[in-house]
Amino acid sequence: MKIGYQPIGVVHSPFTEIEGMPIQPSRAKGVSGTAEVFPQYVEGLADLEGFSHIILLCHLHRSRGFRLKVVPFLDTELWGLFATRAPNRPNPIGLSVVCLVDIEQNRLSVKDIDILDGTPVLDIKPYVPEFNERTEATLGWLGSARKRKALSGERFK
Amino acid sequence: MKIGYQPIGVVHSPFTEIEGMPIQPSRAKGVSGTAEVFPQYVEGLADLEGFSHIILLCHLHRSRGFRLKVVPFLDTELWGLFATRAPNRPNPIGLSVVCLVDIEQNRLSVKDIDILDGTPVLDIKPYVPEFNERTEATLGWLGSARKRKALSGERFK
Repeated sequence: MKIGYQPIGVVHSPFTEIEGMPIQPSRAKGVSGTAEVFPQYVEGLADLEGFSHIILLCHLHRSRGFRLKVVPFLDTELWGLFATRAPNRPNPIGLSVVCLVDIEQNRLSVKDIDILDGTPVLDIKPYVPEFNERTEATLGWLGSARKRKALSGERFK
Repeated sequence: MKIGYQPIGVVHSPFTEIEGMPIQPSRAKGVSGTAEVFPQYVEGLADLEGFSHIILLCHLHRSRGFRLKVVPFLDTELWGLFATRAPNRPNPIGLSVVCLVDIEQNRLSVKDIDILDGTPVLDIKPYVPEFNERTEATLGWLGSARKRKALSGERFK
């Protein structure tokens, strides 16, 4: 089974290289960028401006292959790939919750963006705490092993 | 630009028809299901069992086309598609945060599942509150207009 998607837009951000990127929006506080939505989809952006946060699903186009055990950015040990947010995955879909600042026509100004410049956008969803938050969540390896490096290394180049 | 993905697994759930499905995991409390991961990816599930919640990204295979203005499950008015979580989207990727109960080999027992039986799984990510929660989030149209219907209608068949 082969699933085919087409980008609905593209991310513009200050990050042109993987090295030195923030690894998650929560580590990219205040970084501004733009999600440009292709003109044929603009009508679908109506009513989005009322949301303070949106979810960007992106195709991590610089991802190359994957290993099932990886050393994630936040650690120095090997872990199962699906227990990490490492970008090199069988289907390299990135999930970022970003702050929505403004919408002008087909351009969404966002903050706290952790996405590489030129990354294709697959979907935009409103962020709804009821649908996404699990405050009782426990953290697995991240809970005990997190070392809180705020920048990515070169491991995923 | 065409992006090609292949399923890494498949969802087994009690929901064989779109009609009457819970519209989000938070409305599917206690509903049990299984995410079956194909054998070649099992190694990547290591260390996932420490997480209480996981994110399932799925290809909503029963989605057929899309409209840029939709009447979402929670409302009776037309809204911009990207301001809703409606399943009929340009790239029909579903995002569900579910409770991880147990992992046996390639089978993840999960709870609070809102996904149709037979849905292809694209990616599994650990749910990490720091990466996903925005407690200060505001809700746009959902904040004022939510009518809290717990079941989906027939609109997206």
